[in-house]
Amino acid sequence: MKVVLLAGGTGGAKLAHGLQMVLPPGDLTVIVNVADDTERFGLLVCPDLDTILYTLSGLADREQGWGVAGDTSSALAMFERYGEEAWFRIGDADLATLVHRDRLMREGSSLTDATAATAAALGIATHLVAATDDRMRTWIQTDSGEEIDFQEYFVHRGQQEIVRAVRFDGVEATHPSQAALDALATADLVVIGPSNPIVSIGPILAIPGLREALVASSAQRIGVSGIVGGRALRGPADRMLASLGHESSAVGVARLYAGLVERFVVDEVDAGLAPAIEALGMSVSVLPTVMVSDDDRARLAAALLELVEGMLGE
Amino acid sequence: MKVVLLAGGTGGAKLAHGLQMVLPPGDLTVIVNVADDTERFGLLVCPDLDTILYTLSGLADREQGWGVAGDTSSALAMFERYGEEAWFRIGDADLATLVHRDRLMREGSSLTDATAATAAALGIATHLVAATDDRMRTWIQTDSGEEIDFQEYFVHRGQQEIVRAVRFDGVEATHPSQAALDALATADLVVIGPSNPIVSIGPILAIPGLREALVASSAQRIGVSGIVGGRALRGPADRMLASLGHESSAVGVARLYAGLVERFVVDEVDAGLAPAIEALGMSVSVLPTVMVSDDDRARLAAALLELVEGMLGE
Repeated sequence: MKVVLLAGGTGGAKLAHGLQMVLPPGDLTVIVNVADDTERFGLLVCPDLDTILYTLSGLADREQGWGVAGDTSSALAMFERYGEEAWFRIGDADLATLVHRDRLMREGSSLTDATAATAAALGIATHLVAATDDRMRTWIQTDSGEEIDFQEYFVHRGQQEIVRAVRFDGVEATHPSQAALDALATADLVVIGPSNPIVSIGPILAIPGLREALVASSAQRIGVSGIVGGRALRGPADRMLASLGHESSAVGVARLYAGLVERFVVDEVDAGLAPAIEALGMSVSVLPTVMVSDDDRARLAAALLELVEGMLGE
Repeated sequence: MKVVLLAGGTGGAKLAHGLQMVLPPGDLTVIVNVADDTERFGLLVCPDLDTILYTLSGLADREQGWGVAGDTSSALAMFERYGEEAWFRIGDADLATLVHRDRLMREGSSLTDATAATAAALGIATHLVAATDDRMRTWIQTDSGEEIDFQEYFVHRGQQEIVRAVRFDGVEATHPSQAALDALATADLVVIGPSNPIVSIGPILAIPGLREALVASSAQRIGVSGIVGGRALRGPADRMLASLGHESSAVGVARLYAGLVERFVVDEVDAGLAPAIEALGMSVSVLPTVMVSDDDRARLAAALLELVEGMLGE
């Protein structure tokens, strides 16, 4: 079964790992958000792509949720000596990834090609695909009226400010990467992962043509709620949903995916929300969606695949 | 007194440090060899410039003779995962220097300007100047008949092979950096440091116009032997001199600087070589030239300055 996962950072990375564990090698394609990419030290930084890269290769710092386990920060200390801001913590091994990708891209690789090369070098059979090879950037308008770039909001200011608007700068000129379109066209199952619906999944769906390709796909389509019991397991998705006028619940997430998925997966604690979600025209499945261990990841992935087999049999 | 030092790696770096200690801030300019520069991971690596950068800023790994003290190697391990060769050991803090310089140069800085910026950021008052902003590279022909690039010879093969010829690829198209010419034009003293005369000082003097600028300078000119008791204190200079048909001694070095310096400094163990060197038309001064401690460095530097005061008084 060819599976495509749309994913942003941590939650999406964990489900990607689960799916990789239960699918035959190479059957999974992860289409990854690039709107929170940024530049540091003159290098392109792709937080979501790299979190998934490290998670799928087993190199990830699981505690921290980003970066490489056991990484050092000697380069960052040196960058500070050179007068660079150091609030965006790039570890030394992580810096090697940025330098390596930068080199590949200077030699002519697209972001998707460079990502494929790094993933292959780390022994990852899963296809890791940038949602677009074009530049788009998330900007956040806070309640102070100021508009700041995503990493300024997310990392530097620690997601403390209330989000009043989200804008994907440059999105109108982007195209889905060819690899993303190809994967969607041949998928048997597309999963929208439990990532932040506004700033992780939102930018992927905002790429002109990508939503259409998703809808046109003959694949089964399942969404997974990243909001459990009204709370984001990690990050500001719950507060962001609320301050942008959505319901901070699995129902609020499901509403954003209405028309895109036939089935929506909520956690066991949210079983009571099923009727409200079914009213949106989706089937609902109740599964343990909180992924702490590798077993949790594989179990959720396997349960998703079983759902599809059920759906195909319906 | 405005002092210019021509220098390559370790020996030159130590004397640069000594001169920096005894001169008023800003009175020293170090013109540095760039012919053993190389590219790694898509980044320009400048071993001599960076050894001096770290030595003058107090960051150097004194034991090792290159790199930053206490540096880690997480990036290198990651580069290896990406299939890059790792025999050229670049530490993590060192990588930050390469990335920072690369960024400055991509933004339009010359190597000299980028070096000045990094030196200033590290609080170095000494002017650190690339001998040329143009590309030149040392190639080594070994007794196997093979021609290999300098770092392949020096680092990868550990200087084990016999050197039959040395070629500075691209040198004919280079120009001295303007900062080097300016420093030579206004110097009161030019010191040729105790660096390898063939592959550290040689490439500087091979830059068209640089030797002429040195000779045309109204400065006092002193050479310091990097060969002590017939041996190089570090590196392959002694064997290289011999296999290229020179005498592996302070006399052999002095011969290479004939017509360039009025005075040549040999170590106390080489006092007996004075007549042979004087026969080349140079005065000889005997000084303790082996620099282990900071005090040694400052003492040699101070002794050189005293020599000049003596020369000026003659």
